[in-house]
Amino acid sequence: MDNCIFCMILEGKIPSSKVYEDEICIAMLDINPATAGHTLILPKKHVQDLTEMDEELGGKLLMVAKKIGLLQKEKLGAAGFNVVQNNGAAAGQTVPHFHIHVIPRYEGGPELAAWRPTEPDKEELNVVLKKLTE
Amino acid sequence: MDNCIFCMILEGKIPSSKVYEDEICIAMLDINPATAGHTLILPKKHVQDLTEMDEELGGKLLMVAKKIGLLQKEKLGAAGFNVVQNNGAAAGQTVPHFHIHVIPRYEGGPELAAWRPTEPDKEELNVVLKKLTE
Repeated sequence: MDNCIFCMILEGKIPSSKVYEDEICIAMLDINPATAGHTLILPKKHVQDLTEMDEELGGKLLMVAKKIGLLQKEKLGAAGFNVVQNNGAAAGQTVPHFHIHVIPRYEGGPELAAWRPTEPDKEELNVVLKKLTE
Repeated sequence: MDNCIFCMILEGKIPSSKVYEDEICIAMLDINPATAGHTLILPKKHVQDLTEMDEELGGKLLMVAKKIGLLQKEKLGAAGFNVVQNNGAAAGQTVPHFHIHVIPRYEGGPELAAWRPTEPDKEELNVVLKKLTE
């Protein structure tokens, strides 16, 4: 897609630190890494976000995330990894081309909680549950 | 699996705020929500984390995450949503039964960045790239 920075990277018009490539995607280092080894997986097909994703491509991309996570453990000594996929500007998606973050986590590494958990509030949960299921 | 709190929920031994169920999974409200509507998707099969996940089940679960995200937009007025899946205690995985967080995000809602991006450091990127690709 024109004017999509990730499509330009996929076409080789913008250089990237490529970790992996196959017929459906590339994986490259994030240039603003949360931790050393923070990797992005970009499908070659321009899909805006998860709402446009299909099951077949989604399953394959998830297996690439697994491969990258295992690589981070094996090659970088990560103790674990986060898989994060943001949908919409309100959710922190900065490039409207579907991508999966794979963020290696190290023993004793910094706190990188995706959120601060709140205290349970049964009443609020029930209000939300009603909205979602009615 | 014995002693797995999510297996106990799946077996109905512990109550949950169920949003959705099909033959492969349930989706339920997180009792410590990051935002109102924060939902967890649990496969009925006990899989510890992404390193044990297969492509077929992974693709199906991702399509459930899509369904839940769309539901959060439609029913709760979310402007976007995060899909987060943690692997290992070092990555904040508190229950060793694979699960996907779907976190609705609202316009003007709180900052919930999964991480603070760092400044680009080309030298460090190259060191990491070499380790991952050699």
